[in-house]
Amino acid sequence: MNKKRTEIASLGEFGLIDRLTANFKQHHDTTLCGVGDDGAVVTTKEDEELVMTTDSLFEGVDFDLTYCPMKHLGYKVVTMAVSDILAMNARPRQLMISLGISSKIPVEALDDLYAGIRFACAEQEIDLVGGDTRASMTGLVITATATGVAKKGTITYRSGAKQHDLICLTGSLGAAYMGLQLLEREKRVLADVANPEPQFKGYEYLLEKYLKPRPRTDIIDLLEEEGIVPTAMIDLTDGLASDLMQLCRSSKCGARIYLERMPIARQTSELSEEMHLDPVIAALNGGEDYELLFTVPLSMQEQVMRLGVVDVIGHITAEQTGCYLVTPDGGEIKLKAQGFPEQEA
Amino acid sequence: MNKKRTEIASLGEFGLIDRLTANFKQHHDTTLCGVGDDGAVVTTKEDEELVMTTDSLFEGVDFDLTYCPMKHLGYKVVTMAVSDILAMNARPRQLMISLGISSKIPVEALDDLYAGIRFACAEQEIDLVGGDTRASMTGLVITATATGVAKKGTITYRSGAKQHDLICLTGSLGAAYMGLQLLEREKRVLADVANPEPQFKGYEYLLEKYLKPRPRTDIIDLLEEEGIVPTAMIDLTDGLASDLMQLCRSSKCGARIYLERMPIARQTSELSEEMHLDPVIAALNGGEDYELLFTVPLSMQEQVMRLGVVDVIGHITAEQTGCYLVTPDGGEIKLKAQGFPEQEA
Repeated sequence: MNKKRTEIASLGEFGLIDRLTANFKQHHDTTLCGVGDDGAVVTTKEDEELVMTTDSLFEGVDFDLTYCPMKHLGYKVVTMAVSDILAMNARPRQLMISLGISSKIPVEALDDLYAGIRFACAEQEIDLVGGDTRASMTGLVITATATGVAKKGTITYRSGAKQHDLICLTGSLGAAYMGLQLLEREKRVLADVANPEPQFKGYEYLLEKYLKPRPRTDIIDLLEEEGIVPTAMIDLTDGLASDLMQLCRSSKCGARIYLERMPIARQTSELSEEMHLDPVIAALNGGEDYELLFTVPLSMQEQVMRLGVVDVIGHITAEQTGCYLVTPDGGEIKLKAQGFPEQEA
Repeated sequence: MNKKRTEIASLGEFGLIDRLTANFKQHHDTTLCGVGDDGAVVTTKEDEELVMTTDSLFEGVDFDLTYCPMKHLGYKVVTMAVSDILAMNARPRQLMISLGISSKIPVEALDDLYAGIRFACAEQEIDLVGGDTRASMTGLVITATATGVAKKGTITYRSGAKQHDLICLTGSLGAAYMGLQLLEREKRVLADVANPEPQFKGYEYLLEKYLKPRPRTDIIDLLEEEGIVPTAMIDLTDGLASDLMQLCRSSKCGARIYLERMPIARQTSELSEEMHLDPVIAALNGGEDYELLFTVPLSMQEQVMRLGVVDVIGHITAEQTGCYLVTPDGGEIKLKAQGFPEQEA
């Protein structure tokens, strides 16, 4: 292997920014000024409100470059930001990327990072409008700031869930977490091997969920088609238990979710078994699923079921009743934000 | 000294965010949803456009905690973001702060950081609407994302300068750079002293310009009162030479600025002499002044002079003539983005 290696210093800050931000297509006429000025300029249509969000990823904490390809990392940071926009029932429009880069990173690695960002922006019709590139003393730091828009009155907050509302969930739980466990295992096993050949066969879905998670824009489309505006919504980043508890905290309510209704993919169960882990732990506490958790009034049960891609996993209760996982025998396990939930009574 | 030290882990992420974001006042009814959801929600008035910008500061690269108090750092990061908004001839409205924090930082230090952010937000009537807090393996990383608004048609880009336009500058040059030199000198001198007493007397202005730079909102007010919309504008962050060259690059033009018109404060000259530095280097290449550099048509000369707080330091020329500093004897020194400018002919 003799990959070309261009030093960042040879391009200079402006040469680097020009190179990285080339070939991005603009999708929205509400983007008035993009990369290259002190700020980006955007506007909204008359009946729209603007949503903004910002997220950072730190090397060594949020990602490991030994098994996280730069291109996937670029795609994933866009998913992170877009997922927050979707969780407000809004649609993404603009993106700013701030980088902290150490001099040890060659320009080609940043090309790959931006290839992933460019792919995600094209797929999700997002305009790259700016950012900032600085030296970092240590690892790579990527901050994504995204905007989105929603028609007035359709933005969904975390705080709107009401007693008896149904708790709905897209996709499956814990797959990204198990993908990460698999990557960590192969890294340990192959640490001293000259030509490592990691064993991923049969677990491709888990790897994709961890390395290249897709934001659930399709769900926002489906909800709109069905005329459903959720009462509350949050995206799954910290694990179902933690994120549901946040929604309940904002909505001043409690929740009951049912163990037998947890959507757990076959590969998640199989790898859990192989690694002697409880798949329920992965489902409740595994982060980075980037699925959507939302609530709708009980009267909408049929409409939600008709979507075909949503599981109803429980319902909202009064605040003082707390947040619990109900087991098939009727036992109740108190949800905790971290670690395995404590068994109660 | 026995300052209270609370570990971040004892509060948890949500406890920490609640503590840091308490006591922020909201100033604008266009802020529809602030801290505490997946995203912030904002709107603009009918005749307004929105400006967005993002900037990061990295410990060890952009600041040194041995002499940069946390409260000043909080103030300064808001100035950085606001200054970019002002440079678009817009006014700041909302702010998001993303932190990367190492576990060695006590909660009290973050309280101080947010006290500075809170002070700046109150002074400049900005609404804190969100952010993100994550672990960082090493130093502190602070990312500020700001929004601002301007009436349609009044946003000023870097790209609008025309031949013969006047080059105007607020404040003085190189003071922040000399403030940094002073702090670095005292750090070196007092490295091995038990109870260091740094000597700053007579240089308070330089320290304030480095540690607590104020964004030039007053200039945007004055320009509006006088009915002046600059043809191009940029804020001074990388040094006059570099920032002027960026403006010229965007506007596809050249520039002549005059050495005898460089506004250099007395303290800047005095400390430069004391440290055997050329104050012109500080003026041309010293960064972080957060002053505004803008261009207006020649016909507005009288109006600009009437502002009383702006120096006309040169004029815009054709692109092929390049960017030069003109010395009193008529010599021309080619401007360079970094280091001392090369003498030409």
